Amino acid sequence: MPTSEIICVGTELLLGEVVDTNSTYLAKMLSSLGVDVFRKTTVGDNPNRIKKTVEEALKRSDIVIVCGGLGPTEDDITKEAISELLKKELVINKDVVEKIKARLTHPSPANKAILKQAMIPESARVLSNPVGTAPGIILEEKQGVVVLLPGVPKELRAMIPELEGYLSERIKPQYVIKSRTLKIWGMRESEVNEKISSFMGRKNPTVALLAKKGEVHIRITAKFSPEKVDFEISRMEDAIRCKFGDYIFGTDDQTLEQVVGELLIQKNLTVSLAESCSGGLVSHRLTNVPGISKCYLCGVVSYSNQAKSELLRISADLIKDKGAVSPEVAREMARGARCTARSDLSLGITGIAGPTGGSREKPVGLVYIALATKEAEICKRYLFSGDRETIKWKASQAALDLLRRYLLSVD
Amino acid sequence: MPTSEIICVGTELLLGEVVDTNSTYLAKMLSSLGVDVFRKTTVGDNPNRIKKTVEEALKRSDIVIVCGGLGPTEDDITKEAISELLKKELVINKDVVEKIKARLTHPSPANKAILKQAMIPESARVLSNPVGTAPGIILEEKQGVVVLLPGVPKELRAMIPELEGYLSERIKPQYVIKSRTLKIWGMRESEVNEKISSFMGRKNPTVALLAKKGEVHIRITAKFSPEKVDFEISRMEDAIRCKFGDYIFGTDDQTLEQVVGELLIQKNLTVSLAESCSGGLVSHRLTNVPGISKCYLCGVVSYSNQAKSELLRISADLIKDKGAVSPEVAREMARGARCTARSDLSLGITGIAGPTGGSREKPVGLVYIALATKEAEICKRYLFSGDRETIKWKASQAALDLLRRYLLSVD
Repeated sequence: MPTSEIICVGTELLLGEVVDTNSTYLAKMLSSLGVDVFRKTTVGDNPNRIKKTVEEALKRSDIVIVCGGLGPTEDDITKEAISELLKKELVINKDVVEKIKARLTHPSPANKAILKQAMIPESARVLSNPVGTAPGIILEEKQGVVVLLPGVPKELRAMIPELEGYLSERIKPQYVIKSRTLKIWGMRESEVNEKISSFMGRKNPTVALLAKKGEVHIRITAKFSPEKVDFEISRMEDAIRCKFGDYIFGTDDQTLEQVVGELLIQKNLTVSLAESCSGGLVSHRLTNVPGISKCYLCGVVSYSNQAKSELLRISADLIKDKGAVSPEVAREMARGARCTARSDLSLGITGIAGPTGGSREKPVGLVYIALATKEAEICKRYLFSGDRETIKWKASQAALDLLRRYLLSVD
Repeated sequence: MPTSEIICVGTELLLGEVVDTNSTYLAKMLSSLGVDVFRKTTVGDNPNRIKKTVEEALKRSDIVIVCGGLGPTEDDITKEAISELLKKELVINKDVVEKIKARLTHPSPANKAILKQAMIPESARVLSNPVGTAPGIILEEKQGVVVLLPGVPKELRAMIPELEGYLSERIKPQYVIKSRTLKIWGMRESEVNEKISSFMGRKNPTVALLAKKGEVHIRITAKFSPEKVDFEISRMEDAIRCKFGDYIFGTDDQTLEQVVGELLIQKNLTVSLAESCSGGLVSHRLTNVPGISKCYLCGVVSYSNQAKSELLRISADLIKDKGAVSPEVAREMARGARCTARSDLSLGITGIAGPTGGSREKPVGLVYIALATKEAEICKRYLFSGDRETIKWKASQAALDLLRRYLLSVD
């Protein structure tokens, strides 16, 4: 397997002012191409340290990717330092000049910047930047390939397809590393762990567990030939799916709201919401899904009891009698929203998000969620742990999952 | 200034499966203590590479902090590798054994893990772990100080106070680096840039600009003696505040909803919301603020026109006549919510979040926001760029900022 290193340049990274996501993104891309990432290094905007780090990396690895320091300011010195290290002249590239000019709306004061960004080391290849002015650069040296990318994440990511094309043509890998994540809600990490313990010791594919905001993620990582890797991941995925069934709500970047939104659209059902402790978060998450407006009709965030009575027609006596956080009120909220909105489905969510407002009988984290449909009503009780935002989040997850399971059960 | 390096251990980091936030957190801590961070390196779970990296780092720097690989599994080999490098025996530490036992609820199968985590290099200091079982370790060697910390962010952060105490006693720095961020909404980056261009060239404190989700952040970073650093930051902050006044809504980790929530609580005013394109996001953000329930009464997410009529009493004719996205409907939404909720203040938000639903007259990104109070009503027009979630976010920012500015104007 060819080896690589990633070098991030930027004093702001060493001061802890910025979290580096570029190297994570690049590492994933390199692994999927069958390139082993050996080391990641971060250095400041200092020409000698940049040179030293790149020089060391070239001794160990075939491909060295350097991000950051390609901008127009005086602090941006990566290109200059590396050209010096590799004994390359910087020469003006007319194509790049044209591309930069085409991007600029106020060209006048930027002339110097244009010149600086269009200076390319001799014999280098240029990676075009569709969203910014700093081009990427590829240097094919005897010691290895050096790639320079801008540090702005949006610009770096926009260059990845071209870089990926270049690398995959050059590499022809024997092995590639790919991974797939299966996302579970409604089961504890220890339970998930027990169910898949027999897979956990395997060497290839490996299976790992991650807990994330109440979700449990199972990550399958496989290292095989490019022809075989997807098949091996799918085979492991099938084996895991057998053990979890509906508990797996989605994969990779899919969110629970996307899954629910797509089910609603696909089944052509409308929904309305009555939220109390979740404070509008379920509405917010569902309305993030493009195209949801034909299914999502409305939501009420009924924080005050008066709003519960006025907007959802819940009797003040019931609230007084059972308490605002009770299964009876959750059911009435769902029923009230469904009636007002004339929707197929409706959720009522009431609970105590904290940090105050809890009691011995009704502690912080207690949440009731009701689902009302034409045929039936169900109501579930939950007890969530965590701070206010975590409890809100978990309540929104539980509500969306209740809806998801209902949608899976109907034609 | 004493120098340091941070080394993160973990193959998952080199595969791009996890974003590293530990080194960012540590870098900030070290800078604030007056320790220069020279380099950050990430290596896989490989004993020889770990040893090599630590050895190199000790040649360059006074303090080397290594995170990750202290856990109970066979892959966790940081402690073993570094003990070998520094020629230290690992000996069992009885205090650590007791602490681990006290944390475990099912002690039986974990015996081996206990033993592994309680093995401490001879003559090392232990950093206790209040939230997990792996202790931190400090090794004071001739070449420099080596600190081992667990890779789980929660556990690492829980050890920072003790480590900070240790380092600040040892260091007695001449200089420390601190920073402060001033957050602006409602002004473009280029405008902000122009207003503070005279500060931008300064060497100490430095002033830098960052654009983040529509906000513009001005970061002041100062390197002075511990006695002088806060004064110098405040002096620069005052100078910048003179130029921006109310455009600065908060500092550092403060969010716009926190600022607005605290103003509402402080002024003892109640609020209700009628949201359309923002989909409940303003309600969600405001209800994240602890203690807001005495001020936030209710919200309506009126996606469908029927909900606008039913819940907010907006005439169907007006919607038909002016369109759901119009200043008239925004005003009626605010008025309707205020009337239903009997709140002091109310916001109405209507717009087109996209990706579809736009037209030439009313493009995607067009948003009207109205604020209704006892005395008056105002309505503003906005045109936001970005994808669906970005437009929702910007609409929520604009709504909260409108509320903030109103709250600042009343006694």
